[in-house]
Amino acid sequence: MPERRVVVVGGGLVGSLAACYFARRGWAVDLYEKRPDIRLPEHSGAAEHRSINLAISERGLSALRRLDPALEARVHALAIPMHGRMIHTRDGQQSSQRYDVFGKHINSIGRGALVRLLLDEAGSHERVTLHFCHEFADADFAAGRAVFRDLARGGEHVAVDADLIVGADGAFSRVRQRMMAAGMMNYSQAYIEHGYCEFSMPATPAGGFALDPNHLHIWPRGSFMLIALPNPDRSFTCTLFMPWSDFARVATAKDIVPFFRAHFPDALRLMGEDSVRAEYAAHPRGSLMYVKCSPHTHANRAVILGDAAHAMVPFYGQGMNCGFEDVEVLDRIMLAVLLQEHGKSSGQTADLSDDQLRRALDEYSAARAVDTSAIVDLALDNYTEMRAKVVDYAYLARKHLEGALHWLFPQRVIPLYTMVSFTSIPYATAVARSNRQTMWLHRAVRAAGLAAAAAAAVGLTRMLGTQPALLRGIARAATGEY
Amino acid sequence: MPERRVVVVGGGLVGSLAACYFARRGWAVDLYEKRPDIRLPEHSGAAEHRSINLAISERGLSALRRLDPALEARVHALAIPMHGRMIHTRDGQQSSQRYDVFGKHINSIGRGALVRLLLDEAGSHERVTLHFCHEFADADFAAGRAVFRDLARGGEHVAVDADLIVGADGAFSRVRQRMMAAGMMNYSQAYIEHGYCEFSMPATPAGGFALDPNHLHIWPRGSFMLIALPNPDRSFTCTLFMPWSDFARVATAKDIVPFFRAHFPDALRLMGEDSVRAEYAAHPRGSLMYVKCSPHTHANRAVILGDAAHAMVPFYGQGMNCGFEDVEVLDRIMLAVLLQEHGKSSGQTADLSDDQLRRALDEYSAARAVDTSAIVDLALDNYTEMRAKVVDYAYLARKHLEGALHWLFPQRVIPLYTMVSFTSIPYATAVARSNRQTMWLHRAVRAAGLAAAAAAAVGLTRMLGTQPALLRGIARAATGEY
Repeated sequence: MPERRVVVVGGGLVGSLAACYFARRGWAVDLYEKRPDIRLPEHSGAAEHRSINLAISERGLSALRRLDPALEARVHALAIPMHGRMIHTRDGQQSSQRYDVFGKHINSIGRGALVRLLLDEAGSHERVTLHFCHEFADADFAAGRAVFRDLARGGEHVAVDADLIVGADGAFSRVRQRMMAAGMMNYSQAYIEHGYCEFSMPATPAGGFALDPNHLHIWPRGSFMLIALPNPDRSFTCTLFMPWSDFARVATAKDIVPFFRAHFPDALRLMGEDSVRAEYAAHPRGSLMYVKCSPHTHANRAVILGDAAHAMVPFYGQGMNCGFEDVEVLDRIMLAVLLQEHGKSSGQTADLSDDQLRRALDEYSAARAVDTSAIVDLALDNYTEMRAKVVDYAYLARKHLEGALHWLFPQRVIPLYTMVSFTSIPYATAVARSNRQTMWLHRAVRAAGLAAAAAAAVGLTRMLGTQPALLRGIARAATGEY
Repeated sequence: MPERRVVVVGGGLVGSLAACYFARRGWAVDLYEKRPDIRLPEHSGAAEHRSINLAISERGLSALRRLDPALEARVHALAIPMHGRMIHTRDGQQSSQRYDVFGKHINSIGRGALVRLLLDEAGSHERVTLHFCHEFADADFAAGRAVFRDLARGGEHVAVDADLIVGADGAFSRVRQRMMAAGMMNYSQAYIEHGYCEFSMPATPAGGFALDPNHLHIWPRGSFMLIALPNPDRSFTCTLFMPWSDFARVATAKDIVPFFRAHFPDALRLMGEDSVRAEYAAHPRGSLMYVKCSPHTHANRAVILGDAAHAMVPFYGQGMNCGFEDVEVLDRIMLAVLLQEHGKSSGQTADLSDDQLRRALDEYSAARAVDTSAIVDLALDNYTEMRAKVVDYAYLARKHLEGALHWLFPQRVIPLYTMVSFTSIPYATAVARSNRQTMWLHRAVRAAGLAAAAAAAVGLTRMLGTQPALLRGIARAATGEY
């Protein structure tokens, strides 16, 4: 069989990881990236202030580990563990809400450092060729051909033949656009009514972190919030999320300091007024949108991974993790098809026939469209949680109860956040399980409440010496309810 | 003020009507259509078998009437009134379900005849220039420029300056794609799991209609259906709607006759076996999809109308009617802005300033996104109604009750179908009103049922000579319910 060739469009986080996986499984890989190589010193500043800090957790780490346990270790060396949320009130109080009763944590990591590491990893493989400054222009999926514009040569067209085209080209994916034009795709995208702007919080004059480095810091203010994630250089990257109407009110750099003074006085002190003013003037406002589509594949020729298939708002910290998991899930399914067909597996997905490849892609898309749709929804919901609910007593009581039950029955009751961040339970399964848990929890809380009321009634009737009619009434109500 | 110029992209039904309206309001209009002029004999067969017959009703007629009452009359001359649905059972029984208790009707009309009429109307206006064989390529909205490929000259690029760009270029609108790339648009499209195929039923040998011409004929079969609409030449155009999985089972032309024999024996006799076989082999299968988006506009420069903004499945017969209503609503809003600003109206929307144009477009989009989303959903729901519910007794009983109430209280109770097809009540308002009506209807039916039960209980208790405890129980249940 001649060599199987895959073209990966997009040399970001997901594209470079996908290149590593395909090379490992015997494919010849050509990776095309529109931008120049950000590993070169002259391009290292590209794409700054346009993206939120990343938090890598179990799903992302699992995909790295499966490729090479040493890779996971190298990522950990670049990352800072965050064990919980640190909530900052308006009067400067801080309170920690840990993520997991067993101490599991997520990890703050810079996008640039991680991309560089994965590009190095991909580029070091003999079967991978990296092409920078190549913009995807078009694809003829039936013919197995992709066309790029070589931006370093005035946009000259370059046609490439491929057995498989992988679109890892982000939320505004052009590969996805071509797939939509070539076949029937269900698709939706929507923008939320909020935007964001990035700021920085430097290390202290003594060279230390200005805040506890092992937390994700949140200043929840109801309709808007500030967050901060630690960096290895002991600075924090801060992001202000706010309705567009508020950004319109805080229109210019001179309005931002009074705004911070009113809502985030402690953060303002640590960031510095001049810096906040300058960064608000210089940094762009980012918009927040999500994408859902189905299928994620086109025949046996193309698949989209990462944001190209399921861009999401950043509030569950799952965008990259979900994209990395795409790569792992696709690899597992391709290997499973190989095993089903041949009884034994060569471990080389490059050995899949066209037909088997189609089957693997179909299976991948069917499963993944459902799971990624679930995390896109969860990420939307989590915005309300971060900016408002984290200071709500009923929410906190419920969290504590759920955490206690998880501690008592670690396998039977698992909080949703734990399932999403610290396990590989498929997202849609996690949501269904969490809904069942919530139902039982509500019933248990109600039953406990009724029992307490009944006990009070018993006390009351004894005290008054009357017949326990009230108690009977309560008992009847409880029976009626359950 | 220099002449205001509008570029209309798409010379179908909605584009040609929009061209007429803008010309009437003082604009210089250039209409660009990708295909050749279908009014020329050599191109008259274009786009056959690719579209379902049309039913024009109040919203479409209203937009024509507003432009010119004579135009409405000319359309009626081309159309055949359909007063109701004719349901064909498997054993060949026919039963009529009229659309309206006051005899209002919809009108079967051929797409080709209507497009020709509207192109004639637009082309006869001195301020309108028609450009055929021009494909939309790109637009720079900020600069007010659209670029077309002149297909008659090897695709040569033609740039056109415009104050306003109107995209009436259908479900796969390229104008919409450019708007999506230029700004933040919420967008969704989805395909249903059913497709369609067109057939014809000729006039009888004696030259008459093979079926009652004043009905929309339906052969409802649960998961699939055949429908037939009359044509002026006394033939019917029939369309088979069916799940793709069934099309896969009825794979070839030799399978179609046994399929018709089993499910539509009466239709098969009238269509002829050879014809059904030949048409099933020759005609393409059509897919069915819908589009929703918001906004429908881009700054003060662009607006999308018709399928470009809200493609829908054909089951409510509202696709064209809604597109025509777009044109009327936009015209009304532009005139209203003109009147607000100047106290009196010149009646010439070409007099709107850029700012006023922006305000009119914003207002249009805000209102229209909600209303068109409602009809897109209704059209989806109506498929189930046509292929399954029309033979359901509970459904029919409810329809009759609602019809009777409408006859008694014509303004107070209006069935949803009547509001959609025979009024210009905004779609979303019609849906909300119908939901309220349904709620009251359910309550009334329940109350009537309880009253009947109570009456029965009274009879029973008298008969048995016992205390009317049952009656009291029923009365209590009724009180508890309402």
